[in-house]
Amino acid sequence: MAITVVGSVAFDTIETPAGRMERCLGGAATYFSLSASFFTDVRVIAVVGEDFGKRQEAVFQAHKIDMRGIEHTAGKSFFWEGSYLENLNEAKTHVTDLNVFASFNPKIPDAYRDSEFLFLANIDPVLQKRVRESMPGVKLVAGDTMNYWIKDHRPALLEVLKGLDILLINDTETKMLAGNNNLTQSARAVMALGPKALVVKHGEYGATLFHSDTPVGDLANRRIGFGPRIFRAPAMPLEKVIDPTGAGDSFAGGFFGYLASQPEQSLSAFRHAMFYGSVMGSFACERFGTERLQKLTRAEIDSRFNLFRELTHLD
Amino acid sequence: MAITVVGSVAFDTIETPAGRMERCLGGAATYFSLSASFFTDVRVIAVVGEDFGKRQEAVFQAHKIDMRGIEHTAGKSFFWEGSYLENLNEAKTHVTDLNVFASFNPKIPDAYRDSEFLFLANIDPVLQKRVRESMPGVKLVAGDTMNYWIKDHRPALLEVLKGLDILLINDTETKMLAGNNNLTQSARAVMALGPKALVVKHGEYGATLFHSDTPVGDLANRRIGFGPRIFRAPAMPLEKVIDPTGAGDSFAGGFFGYLASQPEQSLSAFRHAMFYGSVMGSFACERFGTERLQKLTRAEIDSRFNLFRELTHLD
Repeated sequence: MAITVVGSVAFDTIETPAGRMERCLGGAATYFSLSASFFTDVRVIAVVGEDFGKRQEAVFQAHKIDMRGIEHTAGKSFFWEGSYLENLNEAKTHVTDLNVFASFNPKIPDAYRDSEFLFLANIDPVLQKRVRESMPGVKLVAGDTMNYWIKDHRPALLEVLKGLDILLINDTETKMLAGNNNLTQSARAVMALGPKALVVKHGEYGATLFHSDTPVGDLANRRIGFGPRIFRAPAMPLEKVIDPTGAGDSFAGGFFGYLASQPEQSLSAFRHAMFYGSVMGSFACERFGTERLQKLTRAEIDSRFNLFRELTHLD
Repeated sequence: MAITVVGSVAFDTIETPAGRMERCLGGAATYFSLSASFFTDVRVIAVVGEDFGKRQEAVFQAHKIDMRGIEHTAGKSFFWEGSYLENLNEAKTHVTDLNVFASFNPKIPDAYRDSEFLFLANIDPVLQKRVRESMPGVKLVAGDTMNYWIKDHRPALLEVLKGLDILLINDTETKMLAGNNNLTQSARAVMALGPKALVVKHGEYGATLFHSDTPVGDLANRRIGFGPRIFRAPAMPLEKVIDPTGAGDSFAGGFFGYLASQPEQSLSAFRHAMFYGSVMGSFACERFGTERLQKLTRAEIDSRFNLFRELTHLD
């Protein structure tokens, strides 16, 4: 089943201990789309400037990603510059130029309207809500956000959370959103704000799926712990992290892409989706920008999935 | 098969967000012994003062722990006071009174000499080495250490590492010992110092087993990743952590106790041992001091083991 994703398509200049890369193709919607495209059809809603040309389009085309929702407008695309020189787990932002993104007003092509899955990547919650409301027919809605919206745009964000089936954020964001230092308590509090399932990404330690008693889609009703029901996927302990940019969006793409590819969103599908999310996040870190995702094959994905199973399964 | 453990038996005054407990029975050897006693016979080598009486002895006796190696001497037992008010993952030490521990010279009872497993809990590496050399017949030796010995007693510690089969430490200690910020690279570097296997404890994120090509005991020779071979066990996302003191020692007790209970130390035994370690570490956090371990049953342990399997296994 097809996924529509709304989010940023951007250029990133990135510095890590492995080197520096100028103006790679980036943006949450880009990483998400490339990652999800290995599992299902993906349709993007975004805005780009005149610097987004044939070379960038070719990256999406090579993965059969529907670009009819990418609006081309006068000016420059969203630009971000950041470094991970001190800490590979957290980017230090040097430049954020919103450019054409500053006046982004998402338009949904008619051809996207039968999408059954919707992903609201990390953008202004006001826009997330607008897109969500424009697509009332979707079956499952997932979304991301960040510390900036949690701190300074809380009322708008709370409106978005009410309409989400699945929220994917990291540890710090979960605790910040809940105003609590305990992850499990925070997860419970965040789910009380709307999301029926919460995926908390722990970076190099993997990710945890929390889900409530309320079935998400056809999510089976199985109690696997005290407190919210939980499932934990590992991350690959990587010998070398080249560039962590986009790892979270790539996780989301693998997770949601796999879910959308399944006939039903059972508990088993959610568990496998967590693994595929981790797999895609680990690949994203292996080269600068989207380079690794661009060259990936489904065989490599499945081989790493099996490695993750070996990494965590007793027998 | 029996385990001999050398380490501290102490009194701890602990403050956490859940409250304050004065002079609980503590010490690495205490947590380790109680935890391992659910799996195999345990023999302790330690020193205590006159404040260690019938009430404390009864705790060991209730778990059939051999106390013939606990030396009673004039003075007070090792005392530690710490708090976790700001950070549940890291204790702030207020008082460390070595007391009788300052002149500890481990004596090994003859009855301990046929032990096939030896655990060197976190004490002065000079003493760890002395005990290791006094028991040349052991089959498998595991040990722990801490930042203090890594920083200020490195030469003595390196001597100990040469004779270790398994080292159990946390993320920070691993990176500090290797002088490297990447965990997998650090694990490789630490194993080059001697240990054939390394268990890195990640607190609430579980633990990772790294093992080299060299078989540890009968450890099967199976490649499960690039870099060192790896296995990851989860931790229980706890709704409430009452007191994290001793969680690492309890992990070590569950891990090594389970290994010692098995007919052979195969890769499968190591994997199950990682899970039992995590299980015991999670129980330790549920009450102050050793309270939870004292009242635990094997049925509760196995039930949580199954929960951990559910938490991580796809099917």
